[in-house]
Amino acid sequence: MKNQPLVIADRQFESRLMVGTGKFSSNEVMRDALDATESEIVTVALRRADLSGGSDPYANILEYIDAEKYLLLPNTSGAMNAEEAVRLARLAAAAGLPKWVKLEIHPDPTYLLPDPIETLKASEVLVKEGFTVLPYINADPVLAKRLQEVGVAAVMPLGAPIGSNKGVVTRDQVRIIVEQATVPVVVDAGLGAPSHAAEAMELGADAVLVNTAIAIASNPVRMGQAFKMAVEAGRSAYEMGLPEVIDGSSATSPLTGFLNA
Amino acid sequence: MKNQPLVIADRQFESRLMVGTGKFSSNEVMRDALDATESEIVTVALRRADLSGGSDPYANILEYIDAEKYLLLPNTSGAMNAEEAVRLARLAAAAGLPKWVKLEIHPDPTYLLPDPIETLKASEVLVKEGFTVLPYINADPVLAKRLQEVGVAAVMPLGAPIGSNKGVVTRDQVRIIVEQATVPVVVDAGLGAPSHAAEAMELGADAVLVNTAIAIASNPVRMGQAFKMAVEAGRSAYEMGLPEVIDGSSATSPLTGFLNA
Amino acid sequence: MKNQPLVIADRQFESRLMVGTGKFSSNEVMRDALDATESEIVTVALRRADLSGGSDPYANILEYIDAEKYLLLPNTSGAMNAEEAVRLARLAAAAGLPKWVKLEIHPDPTYLLPDPIETLKASEVLVKEGFTVLPYINADPVLAKRLQEVGVAAVMPLGAPIGSNKGVVTRDQVRIIVEQATVPVVVDAGLGAPSHAAEAMELGADAVLVNTAIAIASNPVRMGQAFKMAVEAGRSAYEMGLPEVIDGSSATSPLTGFLNA
Amino acid sequence: MKNQPLVIADRQFESRLMVGTGKFSSNEVMRDALDATESEIVTVALRRADLSGGSDPYANILEYIDAEKYLLLPNTSGAMNAEEAVRLARLAAAAGLPKWVKLEIHPDPTYLLPDPIETLKASEVLVKEGFTVLPYINADPVLAKRLQEVGVAAVMPLGAPIGSNKGVVTRDQVRIIVEQATVPVVVDAGLGAPSHAAEAMELGADAVLVNTAIAIASNPVRMGQAFKMAVEAGRSAYEMGLPEVIDGSSATSPLTGFLNA
Repeated sequence: MKNQPLVIADRQFESRLMVGTGKFSSNEVMRDALDATESEIVTVALRRADLSGGSDPYANILEYIDAEKYLLLPNTSGAMNAEEAVRLARLAAAAGLPKWVKLEIHPDPTYLLPDPIETLKASEVLVKEGFTVLPYINADPVLAKRLQEVGVAAVMPLGAPIGSNKGVVTRDQVRIIVEQATVPVVVDAGLGAPSHAAEAMELGADAVLVNTAIAIASNPVRMGQAFKMAVEAGRSAYEMGLPEVIDGSSATSPLTGFLNA
Repeated sequence: MKNQPLVIADRQFESRLMVGTGKFSSNEVMRDALDATESEIVTVALRRADLSGGSDPYANILEYIDAEKYLLLPNTSGAMNAEEAVRLARLAAAAGLPKWVKLEIHPDPTYLLPDPIETLKASEVLVKEGFTVLPYINADPVLAKRLQEVGVAAVMPLGAPIGSNKGVVTRDQVRIIVEQATVPVVVDAGLGAPSHAAEAMELGADAVLVNTAIAIASNPVRMGQAFKMAVEAGRSAYEMGLPEVIDGSSATSPLTGFLNA
Repeated sequence: MKNQPLVIADRQFESRLMVGTGKFSSNEVMRDALDATESEIVTVALRRADLSGGSDPYANILEYIDAEKYLLLPNTSGAMNAEEAVRLARLAAAAGLPKWVKLEIHPDPTYLLPDPIETLKASEVLVKEGFTVLPYINADPVLAKRLQEVGVAAVMPLGAPIGSNKGVVTRDQVRIIVEQATVPVVVDAGLGAPSHAAEAMELGADAVLVNTAIAIASNPVRMGQAFKMAVEAGRSAYEMGLPEVIDGSSATSPLTGFLNA
Repeated sequence: MKNQPLVIADRQFESRLMVGTGKFSSNEVMRDALDATESEIVTVALRRADLSGGSDPYANILEYIDAEKYLLLPNTSGAMNAEEAVRLARLAAAAGLPKWVKLEIHPDPTYLLPDPIETLKASEVLVKEGFTVLPYINADPVLAKRLQEVGVAAVMPLGAPIGSNKGVVTRDQVRIIVEQATVPVVVDAGLGAPSHAAEAMELGADAVLVNTAIAIASNPVRMGQAFKMAVEAGRSAYEMGLPEVIDGSSATSPLTGFLNA
């Protein structure tokens, strides 16, 4: 029995695991790891303009991501405010990338936490311009609602700071976001182990986005597979409904009469 | 890349998911769920003697467990002390079951928690009699060591009380048991969701045993598959090594120069 | 050795426990409980205008709060947006209350979670009008910074939803807020037990605000004392510096030679 | 309203905070810190015999503990098995110390975790010899029961490994021990912060024992006071009953009609 497909803005996906493209040791490794995840959505940074394509070793990253196979989801990582993020998104669209954008606006250089005000502002602009907007946000249920009202296609609350590997430390807030959401909820950032991804799915997230944990693994292909399985397992469990946590206990072993026959 | 096999007492297993046979709605459902887990070790209770095989609907449970496919692991669930447990194990062996035993001695009717003293006592007796003994224990590192010294084939610390679905609440102790163990460590009891099983494996457990969460799922076959995937994912991650939890953060997105070319 | 005083907007307080006035069984009980907390800041709701003072049993709540002893901190609980909150704050000031305001804007009726956008907007207006503004916010470090830039006198991140008694579930975010804050950080909401208040202080919060847990206790006076002690204990520990959590262990008992003399 | 007294073996104590004497920078500091805790039970190690009283700087530790003020609770820290522990207890009694003993048997040099088997064995012997026995144990509810049956005066489950400062990581097990106990439950080891001590008391522990966190604090006297307050606060809260954790929320602020009058 298969898991339900994920639908974002009328586009349907079998996979509920989105993957980032940062920190891989090489583009070849990245390509193989993406393949192993069976992901259908891959995000790539549209970083600010101080590098020329010629000299940047990652300039050709897009050559390693098959646009037939993956929805390329440009992200605005590095944008410090709404204006910068909007500009990056427009440039990407002008360059022929899909008119989807993972909106990341994080003025804070230490924890890369997103700015709620600028994110809402940029979302308003980009939605009006016809973008499919997926904003990366703090796990703030009211902000998630306001973004929905503005017309974003999904919300991407963080599980923990980017690269922290702490798991879903925001589980209480994520649960509320899921309960109130009318668009898909994608837990993004902080998922450092397969169990974290499974937990996010069990909480009711519609998808997760993983990057660092796969990219820096000793074997990114294998770690990609591990996350793929964990996401499917967590989603299956959520669709079936998990049993409640209980404080007493009860025997699980059936009686076997054969000894007494 | 495949996970390493599990070796218990010179016997090798591909699967690291052991399954219990209690609480399934029917033997047919149980059989199909076991199949879905791809488990190779299945535990069955050898309960006390007040039921005749004829009238017990579960009396024929063994007909539904293919002894070619699974190692049948009799358990002493229901035993209140070492004497009862030893007697049950001997009866099982006399009846032709494998000379393996999951030793469960839990005098407490509420939480079904294991008795450390009786468990050590019974282990000593059964090891001497040639049994392959896998004792179910509280997550007590010193007890685990003493049982190893006595010659048990594995230790099975609980994650949380049986049927509680709380996950690995004993994670700190399990980590120490794993660090000090010279025999396989199997986390048993309390694992209510795939993420729990994945976490146990990521902590370094050699295997997990799951029963209730699969048996009472709305779709035990599908839940069996979910646990199977979660266990594999968690084990893979453990074998590769997981990144450390860190308190700062760092950007994960690579630079993309294409816009500036 | 006494704890350091708390300074908010040039006013100094010995107590780091702020108390709310909702849900007490009577005004007399409230008065006695406030007294027991030794609090110096008490917050009172300026609810929307559909009640006449005459018929409201709580209309005379202010008669029970000694303005010599406590700084009365009006709050805008019930405000759905910035405009309503600003109007309430102005009315309070016009009525002669202190020009301090705990800014609460929570459009969500279920969890009473605060709205980041409206809160920033109202803060800007009220700061300009000379109010000492203490906004209640989600535990969002970037929002906290932006509010500081606007000139608020403190930030009040939630520990958990109001009335949930869950404790500091936002501990990871609170830690970052504290690390980056240039104004006092007051953990507000969710603190259901003395240990929660102590933990918030140990994390580095400058103060906490407690209401429900004291108001609905079987003995609010005694619970008020308990929170007072917990807050002082947690603050003391923070000022001294707590030892790091370590994974190994070491003996704590000294050698005693008297037996061998 | 005062907290209930603690009764152990017919002896009554006002304080629920026991203190250890290890790791203090000097005996004078220790004495003052003990004083600040207002503790009435102080534990001292009766370590193995390789030091002569003359040359050991701590040999005279007992001169700093007023036997009128404190019940001196000798502990068997360092004992590797029941025999050693019993021998130490007997020597202490022969030397005129109170016939109370905190039984600590930890063969493991890394985590100093207690041995359940040896602890039960030594308890049996010492109870028969008329000792008031308080065994330090893993948080094992079945072991706690068995020790009660043997006649110990209290059980002392660990919160976390000694010196780890992790808090009550065994909270789920401690809760069960408390629920089933017929003798006082004293949470011992791992309590690194006042909030940890408060939480242990809120869980229903009858007392806690703290050592390292006070002894190595930058100001042991002040930290002693902090723990004292936290323990009292947690106990008060437990005696009153704490509100349940709830998943929804509800407003806490009363209506204030004065603006509309």
